[in-house]
Amino acid sequence: MTQRARDFGLICGIMEPGPLNAITDVPGVKLGHHTLRDGDILTGFTALLPHDGNLFRRKMRAAVDIINGFGKSAGLMQIAELGQIETPLLLTNTLAIGTGFDALVTRALAANPDIGRGTGTVNPAVLECNDGYLSDIRARALTQDHAFAALDAAATGPVAEGAVGAGAGMSAFGFKGGIGTASRRFALDGSDFRLGVLALANFGNAGDLALPDGRRPVPPETRSQAERGSVILVIATDAPLESRQLRRVAQRGGAGLARLGAFWGNGSGDIALAFTTADPIDHDEPKDIVRLGALNENRIDTLFRAAAEATQEAVLNAMIAAPATTGRDGHHRPSLGDWLRANAG
Amino acid sequence: MTQRARDFGLICGIMEPGPLNAITDVPGVKLGHHTLRDGDILTGFTALLPHDGNLFRRKMRAAVDIINGFGKSAGLMQIAELGQIETPLLLTNTLAIGTGFDALVTRALAANPDIGRGTGTVNPAVLECNDGYLSDIRARALTQDHAFAALDAAATGPVAEGAVGAGAGMSAFGFKGGIGTASRRFALDGSDFRLGVLALANFGNAGDLALPDGRRPVPPETRSQAERGSVILVIATDAPLESRQLRRVAQRGGAGLARLGAFWGNGSGDIALAFTTADPIDHDEPKDIVRLGALNENRIDTLFRAAAEATQEAVLNAMIAAPATTGRDGHHRPSLGDWLRANAG
Amino acid sequence: MTQRARDFGLICGIMEPGPLNAITDVPGVKLGHHTLRDGDILTGFTALLPHDGNLFRRKMRAAVDIINGFGKSAGLMQIAELGQIETPLLLTNTLAIGTGFDALVTRALAANPDIGRGTGTVNPAVLECNDGYLSDIRARALTQDHAFAALDAAATGPVAEGAVGAGAGMSAFGFKGGIGTASRRFALDGSDFRLGVLALANFGNAGDLALPDGRRPVPPETRSQAERGSVILVIATDAPLESRQLRRVAQRGGAGLARLGAFWGNGSGDIALAFTTADPIDHDEPKDIVRLGALNENRIDTLFRAAAEATQEAVLNAMIAAPATTGRDGHHRPSLGDWLRANAG
Amino acid sequence: MTQRARDFGLICGIMEPGPLNAITDVPGVKLGHHTLRDGDILTGFTALLPHDGNLFRRKMRAAVDIINGFGKSAGLMQIAELGQIETPLLLTNTLAIGTGFDALVTRALAANPDIGRGTGTVNPAVLECNDGYLSDIRARALTQDHAFAALDAAATGPVAEGAVGAGAGMSAFGFKGGIGTASRRFALDGSDFRLGVLALANFGNAGDLALPDGRRPVPPETRSQAERGSVILVIATDAPLESRQLRRVAQRGGAGLARLGAFWGNGSGDIALAFTTADPIDHDEPKDIVRLGALNENRIDTLFRAAAEATQEAVLNAMIAAPATTGRDGHHRPSLGDWLRANAG
Repeated sequence: MTQRARDFGLICGIMEPGPLNAITDVPGVKLGHHTLRDGDILTGFTALLPHDGNLFRRKMRAAVDIINGFGKSAGLMQIAELGQIETPLLLTNTLAIGTGFDALVTRALAANPDIGRGTGTVNPAVLECNDGYLSDIRARALTQDHAFAALDAAATGPVAEGAVGAGAGMSAFGFKGGIGTASRRFALDGSDFRLGVLALANFGNAGDLALPDGRRPVPPETRSQAERGSVILVIATDAPLESRQLRRVAQRGGAGLARLGAFWGNGSGDIALAFTTADPIDHDEPKDIVRLGALNENRIDTLFRAAAEATQEAVLNAMIAAPATTGRDGHHRPSLGDWLRANAG
Repeated sequence: MTQRARDFGLICGIMEPGPLNAITDVPGVKLGHHTLRDGDILTGFTALLPHDGNLFRRKMRAAVDIINGFGKSAGLMQIAELGQIETPLLLTNTLAIGTGFDALVTRALAANPDIGRGTGTVNPAVLECNDGYLSDIRARALTQDHAFAALDAAATGPVAEGAVGAGAGMSAFGFKGGIGTASRRFALDGSDFRLGVLALANFGNAGDLALPDGRRPVPPETRSQAERGSVILVIATDAPLESRQLRRVAQRGGAGLARLGAFWGNGSGDIALAFTTADPIDHDEPKDIVRLGALNENRIDTLFRAAAEATQEAVLNAMIAAPATTGRDGHHRPSLGDWLRANAG
Repeated sequence: MTQRARDFGLICGIMEPGPLNAITDVPGVKLGHHTLRDGDILTGFTALLPHDGNLFRRKMRAAVDIINGFGKSAGLMQIAELGQIETPLLLTNTLAIGTGFDALVTRALAANPDIGRGTGTVNPAVLECNDGYLSDIRARALTQDHAFAALDAAATGPVAEGAVGAGAGMSAFGFKGGIGTASRRFALDGSDFRLGVLALANFGNAGDLALPDGRRPVPPETRSQAERGSVILVIATDAPLESRQLRRVAQRGGAGLARLGAFWGNGSGDIALAFTTADPIDHDEPKDIVRLGALNENRIDTLFRAAAEATQEAVLNAMIAAPATTGRDGHHRPSLGDWLRANAG
Repeated sequence: MTQRARDFGLICGIMEPGPLNAITDVPGVKLGHHTLRDGDILTGFTALLPHDGNLFRRKMRAAVDIINGFGKSAGLMQIAELGQIETPLLLTNTLAIGTGFDALVTRALAANPDIGRGTGTVNPAVLECNDGYLSDIRARALTQDHAFAALDAAATGPVAEGAVGAGAGMSAFGFKGGIGTASRRFALDGSDFRLGVLALANFGNAGDLALPDGRRPVPPETRSQAERGSVILVIATDAPLESRQLRRVAQRGGAGLARLGAFWGNGSGDIALAFTTADPIDHDEPKDIVRLGALNENRIDTLFRAAAEATQEAVLNAMIAAPATTGRDGHHRPSLGDWLRANAG
């Protein structure tokens, strides 16, 4: 069974995780992967569905923080302007952004016959990292069908981590990177709420990783290389926040990355997208004025802390779950899980 | 009696003005001026109170759009981050920012004994233009008492326009500038709402002014000079908007300026601040989650249009009300009102 | 022969146009169109090449201003972060963003075997408007080959305007919109420089258009409809500016739009991208420190004015050149050119 | 003699410090303090002079990153817009912003008789934290003369750290905070360059501090309190960077803070201002086009790393140098230096 950071005594911060310690602790959130492993191809799609229904009709309040904008993710400008997402989120490799865009358009057109007719178009959200070190990214192997497969695989419950979906070919701190998740729970007005993070970890220079216990794992035989990675953070919560607050929370994902030893390198597209499942926006809202839940700003530190902690842990979970991998042209990444097992106290 | 743009048949746009065609059409908004005219000194303070009570305890939702950031206004960073204003707004000349800051702190400390003790500090909002062409700005003639006088003069009802308060020494498009206001009304969910603009007009190159009827008034004997003006726009509404929406509305003030012929010159600090009187934020809010009114985004064009139209008209009202003025070192600015009377159809 | 705004005495501002009054007045800039007209399909690609060579190896300094972010354009985030463009620019319809992305990747991979191997990936710049009123945008008729055709058609010299390339199915102010261009010339340090604007005009509510002479053309029989348009502005200059300055210049395109009567409506993705052909960035630059030309900031008003004027004129040129058009489902847009010919003084 | 982080074996990162390990390692940079200690008053001014001459005439290229905008610092908007600073920097307590503004205006008017006459006004840069826990901030004890004293005390060479100048009454992570500094050196094109950080540390919740060796010092007897602190980072370098690059470098100061355990709390105004001493901007520049040094963007990771490392170390130096302090109303802060001496390995 896959081990996670806590199995090695690696505790990030002081807040309590949710039951699954995963982004799927946020009620309604579903996650699916489709992985492509074929010779020099190690890539895939990961799909995150904020809810089960038609996202174009019931949009989620959202915001983006661009930690470092060396990236090609699609849809972020409109999310920032309108504070909404209206498609599932796809995560994939950099050169598959066009394919992901097309796949989300295909699905949105099928479900909404009024798009491009009586209503406007649709804003597909596709997020990416460059997996070119381990995978033949030039082959552009992913198709719309692969994206559909990830979307259709989305489910609630435990999340597969490591070298799966978009994480198949990723690297982090000189180790194998990939997909990881973590969550935190907290009370507001006496009720239980959750904040979960999904990380696509593909960032960090070899030698820079700092564990929460102060150890600094260095991968063996690392070839020095300027960071050309990226990291995508998706932060979900069921606590009601307006988009300005969601942006502030998203930004704190960057603190979680820095605690791991990252400094958001020039060539790393570090993006955090946050959304809330509370009070969706009705595309066909008949009223002119709506009433929406928002957080008392004096309480937002709880969510800031949750975002930083869960980000840090999600990245560790991604790295620990990912096995040592040899990919394109014999490029190799060792596993942080192996390092931890070899260096157990 | 003072004439306004509509008295000359100058109509900006298609929406209907409020009863006073002034920012004070927004219920609760009060405005006061204190003007200093003494030899080469033509300056002052204008105070805008979003409501009558203690603003630190009942903050207004707000946002800022920096059209051109060549300016020294105080308080904008925090307004952008938190989406709130917590003091009255003071408008004044550039070098009186420190004095205005101190005056607002003095009043906030007096009203709130917990500031700097059991709670944090306070964020004074002071906005400025450079009136140095007509006034001896180097004399730094304004004191905290002058600011208090403007704050204490604040009242609902009709607004004095032209060369009053902060507008005393301002210039625009080679004419005399100053303080002006306008408003628009509209319905949401069957109820009546208003949006009002207060403009401190001190921008625009001589020769660039375009009237809504296409005429281009050029002031006589203008000495060519790079724009070193600025314009402050305060936009108030009683329609409920979240801060992201307020920023979008504030930005449309810039469209109103451009319709007048401005291109937001390098040396002009062009700032728009928007706030709503709906659903104030309680500094001592006991609940963790609050419910706040927000606009259905599909209806926001109405407020965009209102902001652009009322901005355009507020600037014209400022210029028309301001008489021809000779100030520091014999510097002279003719009156747009005089020009219009001389060029009446 | 096609008429332009100046043929009707419509003069935008006071600066002198370049020889072609087109973006191709900037030396080295090439433009190409590929138009698709087939039944209910009225769409296409327009390609802008900042220079003739390999843009990935010799990048252009650039910046973006997001006037209103309701849009899906690709590549903007990285342009903002790094201040560079590294592919040609493609303009097209909203749902063809993925196709345009793929086409630019295909070309970049072919020309640069090190992409995804020894160097990073590539940031395709694809800009869009929604032509769904006149064209069957749901058909997604454009292919990579159509994009290649536009790229291969790029040439210096006079620019085809109106219903060509990406402009085939666009609408503006209730009239037929499309592709238009204009330029301004000016001297710096005694030498001649140019600034050109390419507009893809698909914005503005019927009845809002204001001509520079004050007339307000209203299209006949317009069905009222919320704005779901967009406008793309590409601003090119051979004057050396750093990216911060280029962003400021790009922003002034918005002033040109407002002078036409626009207020940057909610549903309109209004984007301005500016680049300079001076001092390209070498992808393989061996030196750690480079010296780059920049503008004395005290002179930037000249470029602000040029950007506002040329934007205003480029949109008018687009609308005047575009013929009355009946498209999808019998939707019809009259021609501003026809209106001007019918209403000639 | 004062101890610093390295005296306790606390090493932040892998780069080599400059000779003084201080911001004054950047040639020309001068620093001065004026401290007020009088009963319940523990406050002051710290002045940073980027160069010795008239800063209004020879401006420094600069940029700002707003890590968390809950703050009242003056001058940041114009620095962001123009990429320049044109006064010395003053650091002080929150409610002394007006006084600092006035002091810098006084000095600028005296040195530049054309301000407000033949040229524009001046943009004073004043940065603040709230020292109200230890000091009676409501007393507003600081005067312009105190600011002048700090400006006049500015000198090159070693920097006094801890409870001096603006740092007199600050707190961090439940310990005494204050002023600290650190630097890094690196080579570009074979020449030696430096990057230095000055930190005014007044942030962080008790219990959150993480030392670089993994230890987590918790101050004894801490009363739980929401963070109402702030931190100001001034980053100086002699490497030539354009303002876009300086903003990116400034942002990495936030990574240094996060490595210390901070998550940029809601109530903490976390601001980073970066400037370069290379290629100053001449206020009276006669040429239209200038040539300025800029960094090859592919080398910027070196400065990112330097900014993160030096920030982390500057904060530790501030905390270690500051002695245990009892201030207003008996409020007490222990010393991290004492903790380290008591917990030496």
